[in-house]
Amino acid sequence: MTIAQQMIKRSDSVLVTKVSSEIFETVRQRIPDACYNPAARAITIDRSQSAPRKRGIVIISGGTADIPVAEEAAITAELMGCKVQRLYDVGVAGVHRLLDHLPRLQRARVIIAVAGMEGALPSVVSGLVSVPVIAVPTSVGYGTGFNGLAALLGMLNSCTPGVSVVNIDNGFGAGYLAARIIR
Amino acid sequence: MTIAQQMIKRSDSVLVTKVSSEIFETVRQRIPDACYNPAARAITIDRSQSAPRKRGIVIISGGTADIPVAEEAAITAELMGCKVQRLYDVGVAGVHRLLDHLPRLQRARVIIAVAGMEGALPSVVSGLVSVPVIAVPTSVGYGTGFNGLAALLGMLNSCTPGVSVVNIDNGFGAGYLAARIIR
Amino acid sequence: MTIAQQMIKRSDSVLVTKVSSEIFETVRQRIPDACYNPAARAITIDRSQSAPRKRGIVIISGGTADIPVAEEAAITAELMGCKVQRLYDVGVAGVHRLLDHLPRLQRARVIIAVAGMEGALPSVVSGLVSVPVIAVPTSVGYGTGFNGLAALLGMLNSCTPGVSVVNIDNGFGAGYLAARIIR
Amino acid sequence: MTIAQQMIKRSDSVLVTKVSSEIFETVRQRIPDACYNPAARAITIDRSQSAPRKRGIVIISGGTADIPVAEEAAITAELMGCKVQRLYDVGVAGVHRLLDHLPRLQRARVIIAVAGMEGALPSVVSGLVSVPVIAVPTSVGYGTGFNGLAALLGMLNSCTPGVSVVNIDNGFGAGYLAARIIR
Amino acid sequence: MTIAQQMIKRSDSVLVTKVSSEIFETVRQRIPDACYNPAARAITIDRSQSAPRKRGIVIISGGTADIPVAEEAAITAELMGCKVQRLYDVGVAGVHRLLDHLPRLQRARVIIAVAGMEGALPSVVSGLVSVPVIAVPTSVGYGTGFNGLAALLGMLNSCTPGVSVVNIDNGFGAGYLAARIIR
Amino acid sequence: MTIAQQMIKRSDSVLVTKVSSEIFETVRQRIPDACYNPAARAITIDRSQSAPRKRGIVIISGGTADIPVAEEAAITAELMGCKVQRLYDVGVAGVHRLLDHLPRLQRARVIIAVAGMEGALPSVVSGLVSVPVIAVPTSVGYGTGFNGLAALLGMLNSCTPGVSVVNIDNGFGAGYLAARIIR
Amino acid sequence: MTIAQQMIKRSDSVLVTKVSSEIFETVRQRIPDACYNPAARAITIDRSQSAPRKRGIVIISGGTADIPVAEEAAITAELMGCKVQRLYDVGVAGVHRLLDHLPRLQRARVIIAVAGMEGALPSVVSGLVSVPVIAVPTSVGYGTGFNGLAALLGMLNSCTPGVSVVNIDNGFGAGYLAARIIR
Amino acid sequence: MTIAQQMIKRSDSVLVTKVSSEIFETVRQRIPDACYNPAARAITIDRSQSAPRKRGIVIISGGTADIPVAEEAAITAELMGCKVQRLYDVGVAGVHRLLDHLPRLQRARVIIAVAGMEGALPSVVSGLVSVPVIAVPTSVGYGTGFNGLAALLGMLNSCTPGVSVVNIDNGFGAGYLAARIIR
Repeated sequence: MTIAQQMIKRSDSVLVTKVSSEIFETVRQRIPDACYNPAARAITIDRSQSAPRKRGIVIISGGTADIPVAEEAAITAELMGCKVQRLYDVGVAGVHRLLDHLPRLQRARVIIAVAGMEGALPSVVSGLVSVPVIAVPTSVGYGTGFNGLAALLGMLNSCTPGVSVVNIDNGFGAGYLAARIIR
Repeated sequence: MTIAQQMIKRSDSVLVTKVSSEIFETVRQRIPDACYNPAARAITIDRSQSAPRKRGIVIISGGTADIPVAEEAAITAELMGCKVQRLYDVGVAGVHRLLDHLPRLQRARVIIAVAGMEGALPSVVSGLVSVPVIAVPTSVGYGTGFNGLAALLGMLNSCTPGVSVVNIDNGFGAGYLAARIIR
Repeated sequence: MTIAQQMIKRSDSVLVTKVSSEIFETVRQRIPDACYNPAARAITIDRSQSAPRKRGIVIISGGTADIPVAEEAAITAELMGCKVQRLYDVGVAGVHRLLDHLPRLQRARVIIAVAGMEGALPSVVSGLVSVPVIAVPTSVGYGTGFNGLAALLGMLNSCTPGVSVVNIDNGFGAGYLAARIIR
Repeated sequence: MTIAQQMIKRSDSVLVTKVSSEIFETVRQRIPDACYNPAARAITIDRSQSAPRKRGIVIISGGTADIPVAEEAAITAELMGCKVQRLYDVGVAGVHRLLDHLPRLQRARVIIAVAGMEGALPSVVSGLVSVPVIAVPTSVGYGTGFNGLAALLGMLNSCTPGVSVVNIDNGFGAGYLAARIIR
Repeated sequence: MTIAQQMIKRSDSVLVTKVSSEIFETVRQRIPDACYNPAARAITIDRSQSAPRKRGIVIISGGTADIPVAEEAAITAELMGCKVQRLYDVGVAGVHRLLDHLPRLQRARVIIAVAGMEGALPSVVSGLVSVPVIAVPTSVGYGTGFNGLAALLGMLNSCTPGVSVVNIDNGFGAGYLAARIIR
Repeated sequence: MTIAQQMIKRSDSVLVTKVSSEIFETVRQRIPDACYNPAARAITIDRSQSAPRKRGIVIISGGTADIPVAEEAAITAELMGCKVQRLYDVGVAGVHRLLDHLPRLQRARVIIAVAGMEGALPSVVSGLVSVPVIAVPTSVGYGTGFNGLAALLGMLNSCTPGVSVVNIDNGFGAGYLAARIIR
Repeated sequence: MTIAQQMIKRSDSVLVTKVSSEIFETVRQRIPDACYNPAARAITIDRSQSAPRKRGIVIISGGTADIPVAEEAAITAELMGCKVQRLYDVGVAGVHRLLDHLPRLQRARVIIAVAGMEGALPSVVSGLVSVPVIAVPTSVGYGTGFNGLAALLGMLNSCTPGVSVVNIDNGFGAGYLAARIIR
Repeated sequence: MTIAQQMIKRSDSVLVTKVSSEIFETVRQRIPDACYNPAARAITIDRSQSAPRKRGIVIISGGTADIPVAEEAAITAELMGCKVQRLYDVGVAGVHRLLDHLPRLQRARVIIAVAGMEGALPSVVSGLVSVPVIAVPTSVGYGTGFNGLAALLGMLNSCTPGVSVVNIDNGFGAGYLAARIIR
């Protein structure tokens, strides 16, 4: 996101994305209970009296480069009171590895599928489960990837129903939506 | 959809979209319990032993021209065992009329917002509720509407989180996804 | 704007946009009555014998990131002899806050609506008033916002008539046009 | 417009665009005071007690093929109580002919400039006057005209300020906006 | 292809694509050994002294609507002296069915993968084999499929290497290239 | 141009474009008769025995920002043995100033028209003369100028015949072509 | 061209393009000296006292489908008093055949190169000659040809200088420009 | 490629692309048999017991700026056990030089053609040979080259069959595919 700070202030929780670790150091001196997720480059502050977290969100992604967006989705959902299971080692280039995780996918209540390049992961996954799949295209790729446009179009044209899409690199939006579905 | 027939065969239900009334007449002679929805131009056959329908889906749209896509979403969800409430008289050109329906929107468990032109309806609605909003851009419009592309981009860039998007005119996909969320 | 300096020289007024505060410091030493607007990053010099300013321009915007473009519009219109009312705390994500300003909007003679993301603000506002609405898309956003293209298309496809559009981030053009309308 | 009927119902006036003469014949039998504009392919009914029409709108266009859109703008403004002056024989290919009309252009309070192809007419005209110019791109052209996109981009990038743009072929929107400005 | 007739004249073989069955009837009266493939809508004449056909080409596709393009590829390769194995019942929506054909895919020397919608089939298949995969996007789909563009981009951005792409709906080019590879 | 060095080596002349003044200083120490054009950022070396230069090329442009491209065209044509007349103070925003130069334009044998923004200059000029007009779009502008695309489309869709177009910012190509026409 | 009639009226000559042979029959009854070019689908009337035609225009094209555009260029130039040599049997798929015509190409004063598909013909030809090359992209092709856009981009990015481009299918513009160059 | 490291680990070989020479120096201290290709900016480690390399791959390119992508293809194929012949001095601007290499091209088993700008090289080459041609568009160019898009479209629309295309600048993918074909 080009917008420097995206915040949700709900009860007692705050999320600030796209923050460098240097800025976090400054923040921590004033807010000692602030946490930093270096993959998502995000600061979270969670002072909510922890009701037990709602289960059911699974976040999957294929390439290493997709992890920052996946983590942004994860911490957003966590801050909204959800428990998140991460499966970051799956991708359509190795379908067998994806199938190894089938039981976990089928136990999910909602799946967030993060993918760049051709963006085929949500299509393949949605054909294996019967829960909502939120597809997040990432700007990972080059040339005709057009900074995530190819992945976005692939996800919008999924041949398996049950998939919907958020903006490119919008991990925040996917995590927020998943939490709305779970609640 | 340019694909002539999109079917879901679940238990005992069938959906065929983009069918003329002439074709339906032929079908009905062989399948007497087939039904026809002229707005969605779809045939449905529902032989499932009717478990009580799950409540919670609200479908909203603004212009008259969006109704066929909205109806396609509605009958898809109904065939998957959901009860659907339709609000087809709202649009961002008359925000007050939308606000009149606020209680109904806030009681929904999931909202499908169908809109062409600038596609602003999901943004405005998502700011008023705390449930998932499935946005369906329609190809209604002309010129720089680019057959629904303007509406699609508007929905992907919604300034209110909680919105995800399906393909242009994909009422079927929206209804299918809403039913997955409700179950 | 990529063009370094955009000037209007009318009677005794000058406008230079996209100027850093460092450059302004240099200018001020030679032109003591030069003024600097840090939000719009613009220098203005106004030596016109001040006729009373014409009233009627209201400039609205939603996000903090839109303010520089809105300010560019404001100081352009002011330099052309108009009085401008700024409402920078409204946006379609919170429709109720927009409605709170309804009396002010309805007293305007022309409204400039500045918005990025999905660009829905002009559509919603134009449905509430009966005066011309000049829509200014901003390059605020990311991914499929395409540097303001999504906002531009949303504004061109407004479902409420009475809206016209200027180039992305063209606050200068919007302010200039509003002043032409007021005179 | 691809939408069959666009209506404004104000006091006692009605506008229906994109209507064939055959349909008009049917309408006239039931509504004897309905009028038909064959260039704009529009039906108008005007039962307002005619207050004197407001003067000041000039509509210019270059090619013969732009006239239907220009006429749509004209009758929209007329129905809203304005008097419209039409100059349909001017275009940038013959700048001298445009200059012959300079006095008329400079007496206008608002100018609607309708153009296809490269859409340069508004730029040239706005440099000659000091009133608002509403630019209407038309889908006239072929190849890289992209159904009016080239004209639209040309108008959005006008090197003379004072120009704003409506959707491709949106004569209705231009006329409606001009009437809002005049009132 | 919009070009009416595409011909390869090699030794004694002729291929004419995009021909209606009516035209074929006329042709057959003058050329009795002409054959017609109704799926590909193509006429073939093969008078080559049949050397044994070269084995190794497998053509796969997912949806029923992709079959005409797949058949165009098949008869092109056959006319160039190759034997073709068709697997038209596989698609990424049902990955298990694709895996059932794994032995056949792994025995191929070259695979032509024909797909519309999101065009993910070549990516998944190329991860399962170690032979060249020729990807053919089809114009099957609607909305943001943009007549095959989404599938094309998906294929160009395949996350598994070993894939190359031909023009949208270019079954002829894929079959021709596969035959070049096999020889 | 992103290519660092574009050279024409004809008889005894050399052209290197996109060179900083620092690099030129280094070059001059080794090649004392090298010349530098700071506007075009180009080095030229001309050791041809000067036949009298061919007359007839006029280069026009509107904005200050277009001058580097115009100068690149000029020195290319000069190096190829042509005499060039520069008119850099004309633009469609002030048509009267363009008309002041009419006699000079009508004496030209070929005109190079350099313009960014809406790119209307070639259209207007070609309507005033009867010689070939080479249009050079520049990447001057912002937003929907799309780095020269709007100007390019405007030029390709010129409503006056007699205009042809080269790539965006391709002053070299325009000068080269003009010299080919003159010879 | 989608515009029905494009006319040049110079001295005593008229050109009307995109006319069916049926319409021509009607015209001939009233204007007996009207001529019809079925390839270009154009009517010409030439009553000029024939000064000897100026030589030097060569028009080349590759595929059969490009001939209508090439003929439109040819008759336009002929009506403007030029003599045209047609070479319609050359294309980059068979470079040797193009080279067979090299002497003719090198004797030309200006070459019009008409091509669809990848539009490579002007690049190859311009490398072989030292005269201006006018490139005309045609809408021949399918899929990613995008109705001539691929050919247009190829021509604008020619790696050999000396090429300029007109709009897609604009044979009229190319012929008109060639005649301006020759005169 | 924007992805920092692309690796193939086969038997005992490793490829890392897009590496600076500084990084290589660090690597070499720990892996003494690592090699660096400065043109491709790639590190290779090859510990395979060298079976004799398979012959038959020829890589051609036109401009100097295309060489890094061509080299990336070359070392990829070499690491996969192939012998590669490089012809980097050919381009369509000088067809005769390309024809001088005809015997070498015709002895190839597969040709990789790397080209930016208009991307015409694969079309011309494929017409001269009867082996598969893998086309690699490069992002070399400016303006309407759109970072390789013009070259890509030119290659997808090749008028000679036998050509397939990989992503822009994807030398790795082309080399990998060529090795698959050769094996």
